[in-house]
Amino acid sequence: MSQSDKVIDSRQFRNALGAFATGVTIVTTQDAEGRDVGLTASSFNSVSLEPPMVLWSLTKTSGSLSAFMEGEYFAVHVLAADQQAMSDRFSKRGIDKFEGLALERGPGGIPLLGDCSARFQCRTSYRYEGGDHIIFVGEVIEFDHWAHPPLAFHGGKYAKVFPRAAAAVTEAEDIGSSFNKDYLGFLLGVASIQLAVPVRAGWQEMGLSECGYFVLSVLAAGKHRTLAQINQILSLGGHHFDDAEMDRLVSAGWITVAGEGVERQFDLTTKGREVTVKLFVLAKSAEQKAIEGLDWDDLALLKGLLQKVIRNTQV
Amino acid sequence: MSQSDKVIDSRQFRNALGAFATGVTIVTTQDAEGRDVGLTASSFNSVSLEPPMVLWSLTKTSGSLSAFMEGEYFAVHVLAADQQAMSDRFSKRGIDKFEGLALERGPGGIPLLGDCSARFQCRTSYRYEGGDHIIFVGEVIEFDHWAHPPLAFHGGKYAKVFPRAAAAVTEAEDIGSSFNKDYLGFLLGVASIQLAVPVRAGWQEMGLSECGYFVLSVLAAGKHRTLAQINQILSLGGHHFDDAEMDRLVSAGWITVAGEGVERQFDLTTKGREVTVKLFVLAKSAEQKAIEGLDWDDLALLKGLLQKVIRNTQV
Repeated sequence: MSQSDKVIDSRQFRNALGAFATGVTIVTTQDAEGRDVGLTASSFNSVSLEPPMVLWSLTKTSGSLSAFMEGEYFAVHVLAADQQAMSDRFSKRGIDKFEGLALERGPGGIPLLGDCSARFQCRTSYRYEGGDHIIFVGEVIEFDHWAHPPLAFHGGKYAKVFPRAAAAVTEAEDIGSSFNKDYLGFLLGVASIQLAVPVRAGWQEMGLSECGYFVLSVLAAGKHRTLAQINQILSLGGHHFDDAEMDRLVSAGWITVAGEGVERQFDLTTKGREVTVKLFVLAKSAEQKAIEGLDWDDLALLKGLLQKVIRNTQV
Repeated sequence: MSQSDKVIDSRQFRNALGAFATGVTIVTTQDAEGRDVGLTASSFNSVSLEPPMVLWSLTKTSGSLSAFMEGEYFAVHVLAADQQAMSDRFSKRGIDKFEGLALERGPGGIPLLGDCSARFQCRTSYRYEGGDHIIFVGEVIEFDHWAHPPLAFHGGKYAKVFPRAAAAVTEAEDIGSSFNKDYLGFLLGVASIQLAVPVRAGWQEMGLSECGYFVLSVLAAGKHRTLAQINQILSLGGHHFDDAEMDRLVSAGWITVAGEGVERQFDLTTKGREVTVKLFVLAKSAEQKAIEGLDWDDLALLKGLLQKVIRNTQV
């Protein structure tokens, strides 16, 4: 899409600007009446090292403009990845944005927020004309840097930033052994097997076979399943069962059967249901342990990437 | 770390600025002699929608400063994730940065690069004082938006940006079934099993057992292994072998043995080595297929996340 000066469309221009990734900041000051003022801005950037200076810009129609035009000081808070709610809060209108927040105070009484990734306390050096915005350039008189992972913004959406992989390292991957720790199949296998250890111990203790555990899991997720339906689901995991195996589960009191032949429909007994609930709890707690130190984004990424691998390897 | 105005350290200030994630741009113009000029900058940001304006800043000591002070036009190229080499090239000195590049021409003959994520052709509106930098504000007279995934910069390093996961969706995850497609254990199991399908078909066709395949793989990665060493490696995958199984592999001509008792050391025969090479090729090609559509970053992330899961679940 190319836009000439005669037909620059605001929405399309805004979309194109969104191609540039940014962090997210909250800029705060205090107005002439001593009221705390703050807003979310992604228009921040560095300007100068000597003297230390940063800039950001604010639309002229903002209700907060006068506070920043009159105030001598402002603070810029570079938000951390876990501060999305703070970003949302400070981009709203008509609420007390500072309510209930633990505040420190900077020069001129400006409110300072915590738990961010970096914080710059500034004395306004210049207020420059910038179309429908004012550009504020501030000299940094004090700063803090906690180096938390950052919140980012891209394409009109919140984003997360990951350091780039050193491609050279990945390319040097040893292809001499399928047991190389970098081989995806090996990592998948080990992760999968280790994750299953507590659940395996659980069904073994309860006197279930692996086959039995799989069938019970399928029946816990859906009622009145035929053997064909069960096998359709289990084939995803490379498993296949026959009538004799189902009969063994019936005899052991885990499942019930209704109907005849290929029409036979299976369900959990009360005993079977109690056992699966216990195993689900084990599985869930194993998963909780497995993902320790991963946040929602990491986990969603991992699952999304695994789903791609699964789609790519579907036979 | 807190820095007061009396002791602001340039390096620490620069580190704190690095907490704010940015995209990466290349800004270009043409100097009074008609020479193309360009440099990498992360100090870009949007300013105004009506009129459309952007800004960036340049150190006063830059050899390119005069070109931008005198030139009426400049272009900002927001780089795509695969343009890291271009970013490196335009941040170097003393080389012909434009050599061999296919260029378009903008107003005033300014050079325009392709394959980026967005491109803004600007007429300089203001040049503002900004400490040791000049802030250039340009009115956008034409722009392009290709929406390629962006290159990002954070903490002094190149970075990649991923849209945030919708936490609500992840939280709504059904815990009712361990066969739920969102359950990590299930995804790992399916991915692992599907990835192994071509290799399994391979060793079956060659007359190897699963056990035999694992042992051959371990011996391909290291010579003179004892059974204890082999089992130490294979225990990672939940496997365990005994002397009888090793003897079967020796009889079948896949491996040789030297020594006695627990001191017995195993190695591949020529036949065993040929087979493992074929199987490694199969495994590698299965992995290639499995990661179709994932780039180096995705793959490194996936492996890194799997390694975390493996560490978390180690027994």
